[in-house]
Amino acid sequence: MAGNAERALEACEADAIVASDPFTVAWLTGFAADALAGPSPFAAPPLAVADGRGRRVLVVSADEEPAASRSGWEVVAYEGFTTGPLDPHERQRGVLAGLGLRGRVAIEPHALPVSLASLLPGGAVDASATLRRLRAVKTPAEVAAVRAAIELCDAGQATARIAAEPGVSELRLWSAVAGAIEEAAGERVPVVADLVTGPRTAEVGGAPGRRTLAAGDLVLCDLVPRREATWGDSCATFALGAPSSQAREAHEHVREVLAMLVAALAPGAVAGDLDRLGRSTGLDYPHHTGHGLGCAAHEEPRLVPDGETVLEAGMVVALEPGLYTEGLGVRLEQVCLVTATGAEVLSGHRLELEPGG
Amino acid sequence: MAGNAERALEACEADAIVASDPFTVAWLTGFAADALAGPSPFAAPPLAVADGRGRRVLVVSADEEPAASRSGWEVVAYEGFTTGPLDPHERQRGVLAGLGLRGRVAIEPHALPVSLASLLPGGAVDASATLRRLRAVKTPAEVAAVRAAIELCDAGQATARIAAEPGVSELRLWSAVAGAIEEAAGERVPVVADLVTGPRTAEVGGAPGRRTLAAGDLVLCDLVPRREATWGDSCATFALGAPSSQAREAHEHVREVLAMLVAALAPGAVAGDLDRLGRSTGLDYPHHTGHGLGCAAHEEPRLVPDGETVLEAGMVVALEPGLYTEGLGVRLEQVCLVTATGAEVLSGHRLELEPGG
Repeated sequence: MAGNAERALEACEADAIVASDPFTVAWLTGFAADALAGPSPFAAPPLAVADGRGRRVLVVSADEEPAASRSGWEVVAYEGFTTGPLDPHERQRGVLAGLGLRGRVAIEPHALPVSLASLLPGGAVDASATLRRLRAVKTPAEVAAVRAAIELCDAGQATARIAAEPGVSELRLWSAVAGAIEEAAGERVPVVADLVTGPRTAEVGGAPGRRTLAAGDLVLCDLVPRREATWGDSCATFALGAPSSQAREAHEHVREVLAMLVAALAPGAVAGDLDRLGRSTGLDYPHHTGHGLGCAAHEEPRLVPDGETVLEAGMVVALEPGLYTEGLGVRLEQVCLVTATGAEVLSGHRLELEPGG
Repeated sequence: MAGNAERALEACEADAIVASDPFTVAWLTGFAADALAGPSPFAAPPLAVADGRGRRVLVVSADEEPAASRSGWEVVAYEGFTTGPLDPHERQRGVLAGLGLRGRVAIEPHALPVSLASLLPGGAVDASATLRRLRAVKTPAEVAAVRAAIELCDAGQATARIAAEPGVSELRLWSAVAGAIEEAAGERVPVVADLVTGPRTAEVGGAPGRRTLAAGDLVLCDLVPRREATWGDSCATFALGAPSSQAREAHEHVREVLAMLVAALAPGAVAGDLDRLGRSTGLDYPHHTGHGLGCAAHEEPRLVPDGETVLEAGMVVALEPGLYTEGLGVRLEQVCLVTATGAEVLSGHRLELEPGG
C-alpha cells in the first residue's frame, strides 16, 4: 500500500528491507498469495524488497504475476508451474541474488529461509517487531480495503440467518454461507469460520461439522474472510425458534458490553484498559476482548489483559466480547475504525438474537 | 507415516532431520496444518524432528495438538492462540532449542527460517532433494490415504454433473461441488479447483467466476481436495445439452489417450517416455502429462518432456492429457497406483461427455 514502504524503511533505519512474512508483504504491496489450499508446489512465498533509492520489487511466481501487477510494485516473476524441472524456491533465490542488495538490510528472521538469508550482506537486522507495530495504523486505502472485506462478512451473516433452520446440518449451513460470500466477491474466498450450534456454542468456536440444527438452538457464526489481501471479521449469535430465557439474558448482556466497548474506543485509550472494561461486566471469556485486523486477521492493537498499546486514529479494531456457560455460548463482534474523536462501526451485519428480528 | 522417518534418516546419512517443508512434515508424520485460509497468526509452520536414537518429535501450536496427536509422534506444543504476548515463532524456537540436537543435521534450507537454523549445530546438510525423491514411492498407509482423498474427488465430480445446468453461474456450481465434498468428508476441506465453462475451457484452467452456463457448454472440472494431510486429484469434462461434433471428437480423442497412458503405466516405464506417448497422439497441451501426488498435490514422478524418473510399484500417478483449441478445451484425469505388473485406476468418477450418460 502506498507509503508503507517509506514508513518501514525509515522505522527500520535500514538501507533495504527484504520482507518475507506474508502479512508484511501484503501490508507493503497489497498482494497476498492464493490461500485456499495451503502452500503451493509451484511457488515460494512472495518476497517484497524495498530500498532507500526508491526500488520496490515484488518477487512472485509467473502464475501470480497478474495479481501481483496490481500492486504498483515492479514485479519480477520466476517460472512457477512448468513442464521443466520444478524448483520455485531455487528460481526465487536466483531473482533475489540478482537484486544485489547492499548495506544494512532489514529482515524477518522467523520467515526468511536460510537459503535466502545466505544471499544477503552480513549484519542484517531483525525488523519483525518494528514492522508488526507499524501495521497497526491504517492508511485510508487500507481502511477502504477492510470495508470491502467487511461487505463479505455482512453477506455471509445475512445468509446464515436465512439458511439456518431445524434439520439442516452445520456443514449445509456453512455451504450456504460460503456460497453467499463468494457470490458477493465474485470469486472464491478464503474464510476462517467458527460455526457452532446448540451445545457446541459453549465451546467458544469450532469448524462446522455434522451436527444437525434443532429448534431452540443458538447459532454462533464468526466469519473471517479475506478479500484480495485484506481480512474482515464479524460474529453474531442468533436463536432458532424461541430462545430460552438464559440465552436471551446472555445475549442482552453481551450486546450491552459490546456497545460499551464501542463507546469507549477512542484515541488515547489503552488496550489493556479496554480489555479490563469488557471483563469488568461479569462476562468471562477465554479470549481477547478485541484485536486489530488488516493484512492479518489478528494483529496489533490486541485488546488483552496486559495490552500496552495506546489506540490511535486510523487503527481498526474488532471488538468481540462473549459469554460461555454450561451448554450455551454467545459472542457478538463488530469491527470499528478509531477516528479522531471516537470510533466508527464498519460492520453492517445484524446482532439481534431473533434470526429475522 | 510409519517407516518414512527411518528411510529419511538413512537416505540423508544424518544424525537427525529437522523437516520444515510442510509437504515433508506431512510425509513424515501424517500431519498438515490447517490450509483453508493461508498462514495463521497463531502458529508457525510445523516442524518434524527425527533422530537416529528413535526420537520423533512434532512441534506444533497448542491449537494444532489434537490433530497432531493422531500422528503417533511425540507432540511438543507451544502456546499459539493466547491472551498473553503473541509470538508463536519465538515459542516454537524455544521448543527447538530445548531439543538439543547434535551431530550432522539434515535440513531443508528453502523452508527453514534463519531464526531456527541459527539454533542448529554447524555443518547442517541440505536434504531437500533427497527427501523429495523419497516421497515418490508410497507406503500402503499412504496409498490408503490417497484412496480416501479420491473419494472426495468422486463425490465432487458426481455433484458437478448434477448441479451444472444452463442459467447457473460457475460460482453457484462450485458452491454445490464444494458442499458435496465437505458433506462427504464431514468437515471443511481445502480444494484447489479449475472450474471453467464454455469458451473458458480453452484457457486450460482457472477458478470459477461469474460466468453463467449455457446450453451446449463444455464444463471442465478439475478437483484437487486435501483429506487430512493427503491430496486427491481428478478431472472430467462434460457437455450441457447436445455437444458439438468438435467437442465430441476432442473428448473421444482425449479419452483414448488417457486409456493408452493407463495401459502404459508400469514399473520400469520412464516418466519422459510416458509424456512423449501422450503427446505423440496429436494432442497438444501446455502442461505435464501426469504427476505424482500424496503429501503434495504435485510431486515426483512428474511425467514431463525430460522426466528421467523410472516408475516403481507403489508410486501414485495422476494422468491428465488434454486438448485445447479455439473456444474449447477438454481434459480427463485419473489417478493410478503403479502395481507390480501395471497400474490400478484409483479414481472412481465418470469420464463420459454426457452429464448423465
